[in-house]
Amino acid sequence: MGNTNTVKQLAVLGSTGSIGKQTLEIVRALPHNFHIVGLAAGKNISLLTKQINEFKPKFVYCQDKKAQAHLASGEYEFLSLEDIARHPEADIVVIATSGKSGLSPTLAAVKAGKKVALANKESLVMAGENITSEAKLNAAQILPIDSEHSAIWQCLEGERQKVAQLILTASGGPFHHYSPAQLNGITAEQALKHPSWHMGKKVTIDSATLMNKGLEVIEAHWLFGIPFDNIKVLIHPQSIVHSMVEFIDGSIKAQLSYPDMRLPIQYALSYPERLSNPQLPRLNWNHINNLTFEQPDLDAFPCLKLAIEAGKKGGTYPAVLCGADEVAVELFLAQRIRFVDIASLVEETLEQHQVIAHASLEEIIAADAWAREKVLQLTSRGNP
Amino acid sequence: MGNTNTVKQLAVLGSTGSIGKQTLEIVRALPHNFHIVGLAAGKNISLLTKQINEFKPKFVYCQDKKAQAHLASGEYEFLSLEDIARHPEADIVVIATSGKSGLSPTLAAVKAGKKVALANKESLVMAGENITSEAKLNAAQILPIDSEHSAIWQCLEGERQKVAQLILTASGGPFHHYSPAQLNGITAEQALKHPSWHMGKKVTIDSATLMNKGLEVIEAHWLFGIPFDNIKVLIHPQSIVHSMVEFIDGSIKAQLSYPDMRLPIQYALSYPERLSNPQLPRLNWNHINNLTFEQPDLDAFPCLKLAIEAGKKGGTYPAVLCGADEVAVELFLAQRIRFVDIASLVEETLEQHQVIAHASLEEIIAADAWAREKVLQLTSRGNP
Repeated sequence: MGNTNTVKQLAVLGSTGSIGKQTLEIVRALPHNFHIVGLAAGKNISLLTKQINEFKPKFVYCQDKKAQAHLASGEYEFLSLEDIARHPEADIVVIATSGKSGLSPTLAAVKAGKKVALANKESLVMAGENITSEAKLNAAQILPIDSEHSAIWQCLEGERQKVAQLILTASGGPFHHYSPAQLNGITAEQALKHPSWHMGKKVTIDSATLMNKGLEVIEAHWLFGIPFDNIKVLIHPQSIVHSMVEFIDGSIKAQLSYPDMRLPIQYALSYPERLSNPQLPRLNWNHINNLTFEQPDLDAFPCLKLAIEAGKKGGTYPAVLCGADEVAVELFLAQRIRFVDIASLVEETLEQHQVIAHASLEEIIAADAWAREKVLQLTSRGNP
Repeated sequence: MGNTNTVKQLAVLGSTGSIGKQTLEIVRALPHNFHIVGLAAGKNISLLTKQINEFKPKFVYCQDKKAQAHLASGEYEFLSLEDIARHPEADIVVIATSGKSGLSPTLAAVKAGKKVALANKESLVMAGENITSEAKLNAAQILPIDSEHSAIWQCLEGERQKVAQLILTASGGPFHHYSPAQLNGITAEQALKHPSWHMGKKVTIDSATLMNKGLEVIEAHWLFGIPFDNIKVLIHPQSIVHSMVEFIDGSIKAQLSYPDMRLPIQYALSYPERLSNPQLPRLNWNHINNLTFEQPDLDAFPCLKLAIEAGKKGGTYPAVLCGADEVAVELFLAQRIRFVDIASLVEETLEQHQVIAHASLEEIIAADAWAREKVLQLTSRGNP
């Protein structure tokens, strides 16, 4: 650990997604530091095949059944996501799969005591209690890849963690300062144009509703063991300050950089070292004149409040939040519901849920499935 | 070390000055953490007497000869500054004396392997090489009290110090954006009104000329071992971000708080712990909407450039810079020269100096004396 001469062996789950591709960019830029031992993807088989040819992994997985037969014949072992995640040859497991498919491999990696570079939000939001307790039990390290959590992690480094509060920054999304009437008329096309980050569709809509920030508050709670009341959200449209930590003496540390996911990815992979990488941009202070901050408007963006409440109540509530939100976002993208209906559908689903405290993984998965079904029910009966 | 149950014994040199008084405020607020073992002051005997009655130190010094006789009769030992600085009963020596009188006790404390909480600028600016090499030799720790250096120190904590650059912030002083004509007409009264910090007269004028920031660049060079070319200055009029560190991966950490010297003082005293102190203000993000940054205008404020050049050249140049500046500021406050003459007098004095590289403390003191005399010569012959 910490020896820069050792090449770290990485398994990248979700290698064809946005975070997966950027992880491979880092590996490409720093071949003396990182080596790919495993790759796993969903359905983008042509890209996965290219990645296999370039990085020559020992272990491969793809979700697509047809492609499995085709891929099974290469010079590598075809393993399950979980078997790659717990494989002894992987030093760091990058969980960059989207949605709840990240849960099971995250838990497998954590149980195997791995370093888990975690980009998948659902793992900690839905099963934060389960995953962090298993991590503790098995001396696994969870290395956050989200820019906000990476910022907090960097600010906590070397501190004895007497934290007064965490301050998560949010760009505010494309509809910052919109009136209720304007919010009513938002189209999917408008919502997919994020002002500072380029991300997948689901995350982009979640950024526009601020649901994404609420999920990050729940993640921060589990990652850093900080009570919800000591986690604040601040709107910072420039997305330069990625988050802050206030210590008990009132001193605040902040982490700054351009909004570029390669930095938090590389930090998670190189930790506790930092590595020079000419491809990562340096802030140009000739162009950064003005950093602005304001309080979030919880009335205009109720998803943030809903998420924090679900996180505080715990149990199966966050799983219901995730499941309901995912279906609601799909319905919005399919133009079946309005932008503002996302929040009201999530809210109604949460209200109707019978919570299970300290839920098992099975109960969590069941709650998510129940929530998805409930949102479809609510919308199919012409409601809202 | 680090045991919160141990009361740290402090010797405060310069206890009646601005930093000294604020140090005693911290001790007053945290009596279970800090205890005063020594107090030393210059000429403010009435305040020193009050402090002695309140804190009951074992060792006392005052510079004023008449007062010495009076003070010699108390229930404490009357020692020299140096003897207090090196006294075995002092865990931390706070050097809050102003001007070059800080040099000798700083060196004494460093040679005794103390923790030296250093507020005196001249020590590191004039004798940075001497003091840092003695600190290394004697395993002394220099704990910076300046807000900028404290910010950098906090940002470096826990990092393996692979630093791309240090970014020192400057308020820009009261004459930020002044035209050359406006700068010409500045009065001492105007210059003494600093927009964000309340400090002594000398430091306030040095802030207005940006000389202060130049001295801080030299200090940062010695404190953190960073080359001058990797230390930048950025104007930040709100004085909330106290400085920043950019690491080799492009990530930047910043430290934020209101401009209140009690925080960096307390951090130096409590390090490596942080302590809760209800008297220290917490940033109110309802009122902080806008943090602005811009490049310094080196043509309008040549003192910054002069200081950095003197620091780079090293040897006795920084001592000449300090000595010349101190006399020039006195002449300005006495209305004998204009605001803009401060820089030109310092520049001419530096030009006429015959530098000694790797100078001894005696040579440094002599260079300072030579510079003071030179400034008086230059002004008395009607020049500038």
